[in-house]
Amino acid sequence: MNVVDLIRKKRDGNDLEKTEIDFLVSGYTKNKIPDYQFSAFLMAAFLKGMNSKETSYLTDAMLHSGKVLNLNSIPGVKIDKHSTGGVGDKTSLIIAPIVASAGIKVPMISGRGLGHTGGTLDKLEAIPGFRTDLNLNEYKSVLKKCGAVLIGQTNEIAPADKIIYSLRDVTGTVESIPLITGSIMSKKLAEGIDGLVLDVKTGSGAFMRKTKDAENLADSLISTAKSFDKKVIAFITDMNQPLGNYIGNWFEVYESIKVLKGEVTNDLYELCLNLAGAMIFLGRKSSSIEEGKKLAEEQIKNGKAFSKFTEIVKLQGGKVDYIHHPEKYPKSKFIKKLIADKNGFVEKIDNFQVGMASLELGAGRKKLGDKIDPKAGIVFKIKIGDKLNKGNVIAEIHSDSKQKNELAAKMITSAITYSKTKSLKPKLIKKIILK
Amino acid sequence: MNVVDLIRKKRDGNDLEKTEIDFLVSGYTKNKIPDYQFSAFLMAAFLKGMNSKETSYLTDAMLHSGKVLNLNSIPGVKIDKHSTGGVGDKTSLIIAPIVASAGIKVPMISGRGLGHTGGTLDKLEAIPGFRTDLNLNEYKSVLKKCGAVLIGQTNEIAPADKIIYSLRDVTGTVESIPLITGSIMSKKLAEGIDGLVLDVKTGSGAFMRKTKDAENLADSLISTAKSFDKKVIAFITDMNQPLGNYIGNWFEVYESIKVLKGEVTNDLYELCLNLAGAMIFLGRKSSSIEEGKKLAEEQIKNGKAFSKFTEIVKLQGGKVDYIHHPEKYPKSKFIKKLIADKNGFVEKIDNFQVGMASLELGAGRKKLGDKIDPKAGIVFKIKIGDKLNKGNVIAEIHSDSKQKNELAAKMITSAITYSKTKSLKPKLIKKIILK
Repeated sequence: MNVVDLIRKKRDGNDLEKTEIDFLVSGYTKNKIPDYQFSAFLMAAFLKGMNSKETSYLTDAMLHSGKVLNLNSIPGVKIDKHSTGGVGDKTSLIIAPIVASAGIKVPMISGRGLGHTGGTLDKLEAIPGFRTDLNLNEYKSVLKKCGAVLIGQTNEIAPADKIIYSLRDVTGTVESIPLITGSIMSKKLAEGIDGLVLDVKTGSGAFMRKTKDAENLADSLISTAKSFDKKVIAFITDMNQPLGNYIGNWFEVYESIKVLKGEVTNDLYELCLNLAGAMIFLGRKSSSIEEGKKLAEEQIKNGKAFSKFTEIVKLQGGKVDYIHHPEKYPKSKFIKKLIADKNGFVEKIDNFQVGMASLELGAGRKKLGDKIDPKAGIVFKIKIGDKLNKGNVIAEIHSDSKQKNELAAKMITSAITYSKTKSLKPKLIKKIILK
Repeated sequence: MNVVDLIRKKRDGNDLEKTEIDFLVSGYTKNKIPDYQFSAFLMAAFLKGMNSKETSYLTDAMLHSGKVLNLNSIPGVKIDKHSTGGVGDKTSLIIAPIVASAGIKVPMISGRGLGHTGGTLDKLEAIPGFRTDLNLNEYKSVLKKCGAVLIGQTNEIAPADKIIYSLRDVTGTVESIPLITGSIMSKKLAEGIDGLVLDVKTGSGAFMRKTKDAENLADSLISTAKSFDKKVIAFITDMNQPLGNYIGNWFEVYESIKVLKGEVTNDLYELCLNLAGAMIFLGRKSSSIEEGKKLAEEQIKNGKAFSKFTEIVKLQGGKVDYIHHPEKYPKSKFIKKLIADKNGFVEKIDNFQVGMASLELGAGRKKLGDKIDPKAGIVFKIKIGDKLNKGNVIAEIHSDSKQKNELAAKMITSAITYSKTKSLKPKLIKKIILK
């Protein structure tokens, strides 16, 4: 097989065979195909697309670049959730304990913050001592003991993804549905799961800004999951404003604790019940998503979900004291209150800008290797459709730098559009795809 | 400026500005932009295209990656010809002396064989002693003395082209009209010419197999030439069969001598008169292409063209004795006569295969660095539309290896399609574009 012939084949809009995609992915991963040829292939695939078969072949080739976990020794159905990411999206921290306490195994391999979005690993690591770098034996052991485990990607899991993503990142080939599908599904399939709930976000704070693109991605993810005989449910959910009210790593652990304790019932709570309900349904502990939601809510009300969360934190080395007494957590030196200077309705939020503001505070990385300040972040007090009066607090901005707080305040201010007339609240769950 | 942003801009089908194309080409040429980013850009440009402005910017950036010659110190109008290449295309060797003897300066910077096609430099170097590696001072001096000069590309001329072409070759981005235009025109414009005649070939032995593609390339070349204020005439000519009857480096010098001496008046002769006529017209020595053709024919009949050829050979170090006595040139050890084994009309020739057969004999390079056998080649005795009788000679195949001759004979045999009924001869000159 000749690399240039394969590039030309895709370039001319033809479909590649399984052996051809295997040759390209394994050749590139093993350093036999140079960067410049693989990037030309990626651009051709970006512009000419890949059909669902090719996308499955790509996923399979990436999956088998590393270890595929076998969790058969652990009894029970294994269900994970994947979110395409957004601002304030801490659902994993809430769902994993809920679903595990309902008797389903939740093996989660998560990622770090990417661009304007936060990452589950960074949030968990805000808990002092919490280890996200368990090896695969420890991973299995925690999962067996408490029914859930949350770790980061190891080098053994789909190494092709890391290598290919680095190249996509610098060659303008990130926003491609088949390439995104391969990246997500190769890692998820390596976990050894039976089923997957997908939360594909759309709106100003999502990677897929347009609902149509989110739906296309969901379709591609579903069709790939199906081709590997995995059960799957996809949600298309709103990301036009921060999810919940807290942005920033410890802040998001804090809000998760509040939800798990049943102290808040906001949009975050609502979404978590839905995602957990779907996972419970896929895990055969309920006969519908609706029934699963009820069971999920029960886990919160009876205290089992919160208690499961403390169990996970403990097993992964985190200091449980902070979970029980979050008020003991270190505080930022400076707090800036952003105050409304006029009356009006919140019409629109540029949620990407809100995410970028949290990055400026130190809640995320502006470049590789940047250190995160776990206590920095934003308490975002408004939602689209809210009526604001002059003097109301829009947000509390927390960091150790007054300048950073001022900059973030400016970014948030310019991210919000007001209207004189009442504006509609966006629908949180736009679509549930169950195939 | 950010490379990824520019790749994305082209990927999304937007037009790049002059400063952006300059940034990419100069960045890549100066090793500041890595291969993998430039190849992603090339694929995006291949698939999304570049408009005529962008193509001119690309040409300009490549042109100014090196020296642009100034030939103002040499009196007279400077006109060159460029052919997109084919099998048996030795027109440069014939046209340069014709046009120079008509009083026009012909500064030619030519290339080597590419794929199945021969290269002017390889043909000239079949003449013992002939130097194609003159430096730019020697180049000017020969041009001044005899009105024509034929050399190879130096490292000073459009170095970006060599660098970019090497990457295109291994990333499936060769057959792109804007990229081909930049490659051709950057080198031609660096010669310091006033005008250019283009011979864009189409058919089974051409790079542009379809006439429509050849016309699109011609349009792109013309529009780029015009944007640099150069006079230009383009011919679309047939390459469905070898041009003339000789293929192979010395063989093509030999046929050139025969044409220059007026000893043959075949398709090669006809095309040379047309191209030379157009050059003479652009050089203001005639008031039309037709009149230019007459003047060109006169240069052959009065012996001035042949005498100019010997002058060029002499000034560039070649042994003139072989030009006067071509029969003295070394011969191949083996000659295979390919004989028709049935009666019929020649309907079609896969001219690419004929070119590949000459490569097998050693007349071209199968891979970089291969040594060429200047005396190897094919005397191709038939033309499309000819009636063949059993026993007629189709071709004489010359090389130092019986096996190679046998292989070439098989390739030529399978390249020819016969018909029982009379078939049409292809039109040699399909179109003349004068804008």
